[in-house]
Order: sequence, then C-alpha cells, then structure tokens
Amino acid sequence: FLQHVKASFGTLKPEAKNMSQQAVNGVSHRGKVLTLDSMNPNVKRVEYAVRGPIVQRAVQIEKELKEGVKKPFTEVIKANIGDAHAMGQKPITFLRQVLALCSYPELLEDNMFPEDAKKRARRILESCGGHSIGAYSASQGIECIRQDVARYIERRDGGIPSSPDNIYLSTGASDAIVTMLKLLVCGEGRSRTGVMISIPQYPLYSAALADLGAVQISYYLDEDKCWSLDVAELRRALNAARQHCNPRVLCIINPGNPTGQVQSRQCIEDVIRFAKEEHLFLMADEVYQDNVYAEGCKFHSFKKVLFEMGPEYSSTVEMASFHSTSKCYMGECGFRGGYMEVINMDPEVKAQLTKLVSVRLCPPVPGQALLDLVVNPPQPDEPSYTTFMKERTAVLAALAEKARLTEETFNTVPGITCNPVQGAMYTFPRITLPQKAIDKAKEEGQVPDMYYCMRLLEEEGICLVPGSGFGQREGTFHFRMTILPPTEKLKVVLQKIREFHLRFTQEFS
Amino acid sequence: FLQHVKASFGTLKPEAKNMSQQAVNGVSHRGKVLTLDSMNPNVKRVEYAVRGPIVQRAVQIEKELKEGVKKPFTEVIKANIGDAHAMGQKPITFLRQVLALCSYPELLEDNMFPEDAKKRARRILESCGGHSIGAYSASQGIECIRQDVARYIERRDGGIPSSPDNIYLSTGASDAIVTMLKLLVCGEGRSRTGVMISIPQYPLYSAALADLGAVQISYYLDEDKCWSLDVAELRRALNAARQHCNPRVLCIINPGNPTGQVQSRQCIEDVIRFAKEEHLFLMADEVYQDNVYAEGCKFHSFKKVLFEMGPEYSSTVEMASFHSTSKCYMGECGFRGGYMEVINMDPEVKAQLTKLVSVRLCPPVPGQALLDLVVNPPQPDEPSYTTFMKERTAVLAALAEKARLTEETFNTVPGITCNPVQGAMYTFPRITLPQKAIDKAKEEGQVPDMYYCMRLLEEEGICLVPGSGFGQREGTFHFRMTILPPTEKLKVVLQKIREFHLRFTQEFS
Repeated sequence: FLQHVKASFGTLKPEAKNMSQQAVNGVSHRGKVLTLDSMNPNVKRVEYAVRGPIVQRAVQIEKELKEGVKKPFTEVIKANIGDAHAMGQKPITFLRQVLALCSYPELLEDNMFPEDAKKRARRILESCGGHSIGAYSASQGIECIRQDVARYIERRDGGIPSSPDNIYLSTGASDAIVTMLKLLVCGEGRSRTGVMISIPQYPLYSAALADLGAVQISYYLDEDKCWSLDVAELRRALNAARQHCNPRVLCIINPGNPTGQVQSRQCIEDVIRFAKEEHLFLMADEVYQDNVYAEGCKFHSFKKVLFEMGPEYSSTVEMASFHSTSKCYMGECGFRGGYMEVINMDPEVKAQLTKLVSVRLCPPVPGQALLDLVVNPPQPDEPSYTTFMKERTAVLAALAEKARLTEETFNTVPGITCNPVQGAMYTFPRITLPQKAIDKAKEEGQVPDMYYCMRLLEEEGICLVPGSGFGQREGTFHFRMTILPPTEKLKVVLQKIREFHLRFTQEFS
Repeated sequence: FLQHVKASFGTLKPEAKNMSQQAVNGVSHRGKVLTLDSMNPNVKRVEYAVRGPIVQRAVQIEKELKEGVKKPFTEVIKANIGDAHAMGQKPITFLRQVLALCSYPELLEDNMFPEDAKKRARRILESCGGHSIGAYSASQGIECIRQDVARYIERRDGGIPSSPDNIYLSTGASDAIVTMLKLLVCGEGRSRTGVMISIPQYPLYSAALADLGAVQISYYLDEDKCWSLDVAELRRALNAARQHCNPRVLCIINPGNPTGQVQSRQCIEDVIRFAKEEHLFLMADEVYQDNVYAEGCKFHSFKKVLFEMGPEYSSTVEMASFHSTSKCYMGECGFRGGYMEVINMDPEVKAQLTKLVSVRLCPPVPGQALLDLVVNPPQPDEPSYTTFMKERTAVLAALAEKARLTEETFNTVPGITCNPVQGAMYTFPRITLPQKAIDKAKEEGQVPDMYYCMRLLEEEGICLVPGSGFGQREGTFHFRMTILPPTEKLKVVLQKIREFHLRFTQEFS
C-alpha cells in the first residue's frame, strides 16, 4: 500500500537541483543546510492524498481556465474533500449570528439578532478572558463549553455520565487524533508501538503514523459485506504484527471514511471485547455521527456500547472519541473546531496530555464558540428553533437523497460497483480497469487509479481521490468521491463519470 | 536548566496509582495500556512553564475566591502570559467589524458598517470556497492573503521582494515554528540535529525540541549588557555542542521574549554572518516586530539585513521568519493567526513542507482573515483610518509607558534589578534571594524562584512565571511578568510585588 501511495506522488518533480545550481553560480561551495537528503526522514514518508498531486493539478487547471485556456469543461468540480461550504452548502444562520455577535459585541445592541443568539453570545463572551474571543482560553478549552460538550454526550448516550474534565477541545478533530497518537507512541525496533488502522483508511492516520515513526498495522474492511469490520480480520492483522512491533492502539472510523458504512451495535461490541482481550487503546473517530442516512442504520457511540457492556468493560477499556464542527449538518471546516473525550485514561497521563496541549496555548476560540453552539443548539421554546431545525433538516435530507442517488447511479455503470452510502459523506466505488489501462499507467509511472483520476480531471474537470491514497486490497481499484455537490450538479457529475468510465474502458479494450 | 524546569514541575502529584487501584478493585489483572511508564518518553520531557503548575494553582485560587474562601486579595492578576484582551485591552474596532461581516455576510446589507470594512470582507469572502469562511482554505493559506502578506513584508523591508509562494499561513506562530523545527530534525546519536536557542528562551522552543527528540544547544544572553547577544557566546555554545550532536539551526527571538531587548542592526548582521560561516538554518521569531518602545531602538527584520548584506548572503543563507496576530497592537491570541516566510529554501523541501501542512488541512480561516487585516490595514483615504490609527496608537503608547514604568519601579526595589523593556511585552527582572529562602525552597522540593512566585501568588494574588521556566544562568533567579495590565492596575501590581519582595527578604534574613 505504501508503495502505491509513494508511486502516486511520483509526479511531484523536483523543481531544481540546488547543490549543483549553487556550485554553478559560484555562490557557495557547500549545499543547503536543509535538503531532501538532510531533512526529517519521517516527514518524507508522510503522504496525504486528499490534498495530493491531483488536487494541485486541479488548482492549476482552475488557473488555466481563468486565463482563458480552452478545456472540454468550464469549471473544476472538487469532489475530493468533505468541504460542504465550498460545494455551495449555506452556513446555518444561528451559528453565524452568534459568531458575528461574539466577534463584534457592539451588535448585541442591534435589533436584527434574535434573543437566543444574543444569549448564547453573551454566555460565551462571559467565559472568555476580558470577555473577548481574542483572549487565549484554557489549553483544554473554555470550561463552560467543555461542560456543554459533556451534557451533549450524556444526552446522546442516554444519560451515561460524561465529565468536562475528560473533554479536550481541539483544532478540528485532526489535531486531537494526532495528539492522542503522539501520547501513545514509544519504544524502538520490535518494541515500537503498532497502531491498527482500517484499509481503506482516512490518510490522516497513515500520515500521523509516518510522522511519529510508529508502525502501521493494516486491517481490511470487507467490501463484499458493505465494508463491514470482522474481528477475525482484526485478529489476523494483530497476530501478524506481533512478530515485528508492539500493537497498542486500535483506530476505528464510524461512520466510515472513505467507505461510508455505519457499524452495527453488535460489531462495536465485538470490537470493544477484542480491544479489552488484546489490551489495546481504542481510538473512535466519530466525526460523522450525525451523518447517517440508510434505513435501518443508526449511530451507536463506542462509549455508549462500552458502558452498556457493564463495569468489567466500562471501568477498564481505555478510549478516546473524536468529534468535529467540520462535518454533520454544519460543515464549518474553516473554523477548525473539535473535541475529544477520553475514557479510563490514567490520571498521570491526563496531566501529561494537559501539559502537552498547553504548549500550543489553545484551540482557536471562534472554533470553540462554534462547537458550543453545535452541542447546545436552539431549543423548542427559543426563537431561532424553527429556522435552525428547518436548515439542519434540509441539509441532512439532501445528503440522504444524494447518498441514495450516488449509489444507484454508479451501480448502473458497467465496471463500477458501489456499496450503499449508509453514512458520512463519501462513496468509495470499485472500478474495474482493463489490463491495457493498467499497463499504460505503469508506462506513465502512475498507479492505475491515479492515472484514471488524472484522466477524469483533465477530460471532465472532476477532481476525485484515487483509492490508492486510502489503501485498498492488492489488485483492486477505487476512488473516493464526496456526495456534497448540490443535487443537480451531483447528477451532472455522476453522468460525466459514467460517460468517462465507458469511454476509458472502451479506449483500453 | 532542564533539571530546574523538571523540579519546578515536581508539584504535579500523580492523582492515583492506577495499576494497584485496579488490582484492588479486582477488575483487571493487567494495568492500563497507557501509563506514565508506557507513554511517549519525549512528551514526558516536554515542559511549558508559561502554563505550568503556578497557573494551575492560580486557576484554583480563582475558584476558591468565587466560592467565598477568604484570601488576602480579591482577584488573581495573571501577568504570566502575553494575553492582552484578558488584561482588558479592547479589540481594534475595524478588525472585529470585518470579522463579523465575514461570519455573517447578511451584515453587508447593514448600514452600521463602514465601506472599507465591507470591502475587505467582500474580498476575503470572494477568496473563500463557496464564499464562506467555513470552507477549508488551501493548506498554505488563502492565496490573496498570502499576496497581502508578501506586499506587507515588502513595504516593511523597503522594497526587498517577497513572494506569496514563500508565505505559509499558520495556526499562531507556534504552529509554524514547530513545523519548521520538525522539518529540520534528523539523525541519531552524535548525528542528531542540534538547535541553538537563547537562554532565557520562550519555552515553546525547549518543549518542541523535547517533543522532537532534538538536542537543545543553549547560548546565553548577556544580562549585564541589556540581554544582548554576543557572537562569541554563540561560538562557544556551538563548539561545545559539536562534541555530541550536529548543530544545524539557530533560533533568535527579536524583540526578545522573555527578556524584552531589541537587537541592534550590527548584532543581526553578526548573527547572519555566523549562521553562514557555520552553515546553520536561521529561525527568526519576530512576532513582536511592532512592539518597540525604547528611544533609539528600532526593529530590523532579519530578512532586510540579510538582503542588505549582498547576494553572497541573500542568495545562500536559509531562513524562516515568524509573525503572529496575537501580539503587537492587536493582541488577538484567541484567533490563532500567523504566518512564516521562508527564504532560500530548497524547492524540494518546500514541496515537502507544503505536503506536511496539508495533513492538518488548513489554518483556521477566521485567523487568516484577521491576519489579512493586520497586513492590509485601513489607508489614509478610507473611512476607518482615523479610528484605526487612534486605537492602534493608544495601545502602543500605553505599552511604551508601561514598559518605562515597570523598569523604573522595579529598579527602586532593593534586591530587584531590571533591564529596560525595549520591546515585546515582558520584563524579566533579576531577584536576589536570601540563602535561607533558597534552603527553604529546597526543603519544599521547589526551585527557589518557583517557591518565590508561589508565595507571591498565595499572598498577593499575582501570577508570574519563575525564571527557571525560561532558563537562566546557574545561581541567578528571575521572574517573567507581562506589562499588559492597565496602567493603574500595573501600578498596584508593581507596588504589591515591591512589598512582597521586601517582606520575603526580611523573613529569610
């Protein structure tokens, strides 16, 4: 898998050979201090396909279009990243009203804002140093917001207690995930920490593990069973890994990214039992917890299931769960808001975690404020409730419709098969590529699905991420596409991919 | 020095012994997965005194006061951190108007906002995906903001060119500093990267080096010469370090934190020459570039001096310079805005840097918007100019007055000596402690200046950071205090410290 990812970055050509250039200029006989050869080797191993070479090319094409270069299309549609607002989703009014009030409190005197928005803004401002969101907050996050998060979790989990002391606000979920992994990694050689991640995975995980020099342990999701997770596969991967590293962490993404599956309650229970038996720290990436669309599917938090399994589990299994303001119905990626809840964490380690996050001072306060509104939305007796619910429901209903539409359309295309998008905001269809196309890709020095996606970008202006950026079983090919474009545009996108796929298959048959 | 810092954290007692506790509960025979013994050892070595145990105690005291516990004071004054708004400084109107407009663009229709604020907001929104600050930006930062930053640098440096391609927006300056250090660190054992940092230093540096497992090379600033930097001392430190590591990086903070000195042009030239001779990558932390108060002092950017030294230097010396929205006249810490400019960076390494920052997706967009206003403030022909200049000047004039007041007052106290606060927003006075106080501190298991600061906190409600948190010459003691409290409150603080110091000295004489 790593080889594939590396190959997919093979198109990034060095812009200049500095040492020789400098020698020619006669300016210096020594090379640069910092070169590809003398930089941090772990950073070199980091790859992040969601913003990889295909996106760089997409940005370039956009510039070319602006400059009047003729293309077979008039705009680039970026379905590579879960960025709802960029795809035209409008911000939720209530959230933005409160943020405006927090930014410029003089607006609290203005009559254009509803009272509940003002009330929220006043409460947030009162909890800020000097009543300003420009002050640093506590490094763990503003206390009253952590309290609101804890109450939100309790409501979500049917009353299972949550303590604000276990909540850490973060700069998006990514920040908290990397921090948690950093705490967990230690040892050298065969004692080096191994971290189990699903394949396909969200490449933040592989990137963070490369950066930290931890060992990636890949377990495969079962594409034939709607990307479900099987404990037997976890056990296979774990046992194999025990030969060469010290497996200590199991990461789960539910609902799945890039695969869009929603785990059953039974499966979660099995995973928790496995984690306890094998003495693993659980990391539950639950940022898509409000994005569940399929009939019969329901989001079950790892924490709730853990506590329902009784004290033998709820008082021992160590866990961190992650959430974000970037997804769900809000899609407020730019604010970089998020939190994690830690469960059964050793108090000494918690003190170390608090110390570690203090070095970066605090997560962005506007993002914290936004998170507060997400966990503490307008209530039925408040003036903003109706509009808020209308907007929220509209976003989620449209996503559900687009999830269905995507699956249905792709499954009508010969050579594309697509699992249901039960949740999250992506589809990860499998594409059958003719051998001649695979050979052609090799000739071009690209992995086959990167070649496919690059061709799609150049010919149709649609930017997807090749499956190799997420990992996939050897010999299979996929792409990840977000379902975020507005319905009418999504129909066009699906149609264009359909036509491209048929043409591409034809060309190489 | 590290020993001192560690000792200063000795007060963080473990809250529970989990393994034994669990054994007692009979719940598990195995301990936790993640314990102090099994966590990342580098993280354990991280220390960050600015938010260390003394601040935790200050927060606790605030709670006690709220609960009605009687204390010899009615409020805790936190002079431990450069957090202007928390100390009562009001946000700059123009900045916040634009942020409110960006947050809730419906306000663009409102008549209460000046046209130039609307114009800025429209321009920022147009550069955002879907015209929303809730969309992800490019990982390097919004392009038009990077252009504005480059133009700002060109104006600052008298026309020396700056390219938006060399600008990386960041989550506060801390984020960019850590990212840059991460790129630079490699090797093992005697080949491990060594990084030169000043003593006293801002503890982000020592914390990041501990986290990365890099070697800290300490060079001492000369307290007797107003904390100036002497190249002979750099050379001493470098030569000593060459015995056990591979020194590759030289970090400079100018204006100084915690020491408040402003480097002369000559000194900067000497440092650059030294960096070139010794083949070091320069990291110039210039976040206090607009905070210069002393007569005869002027901020000289490392980049400008580098380019004035001619092509032999300007085309070879590798450098990164850091700036932030948290300091200067804005004090907008909570927004976590910042940027770095890289100079002479190997293009292949730059591609790696761009890849690395893409993993975290993007810096918070509200912080990017704020930065844009800082580098592109109202112009003389614009409606907001007068108010903006009045507010900006008032903040900087008050800081200059408080810098003078602080130095003067401390120097009247027997046993306190204080260099001029030429710039930044801190004073780092030297305190003479009686031997009996030093002995008493040892008895209590604290370093002497931590003991002093803890007593000051308990008795006067003033929160400072002990000098040991920043590093100081063996046998000397200091504290860092911000000059940010409003003038009248600062006078009270200085008076209280004066009285405490006399009482403390008396007690142990």
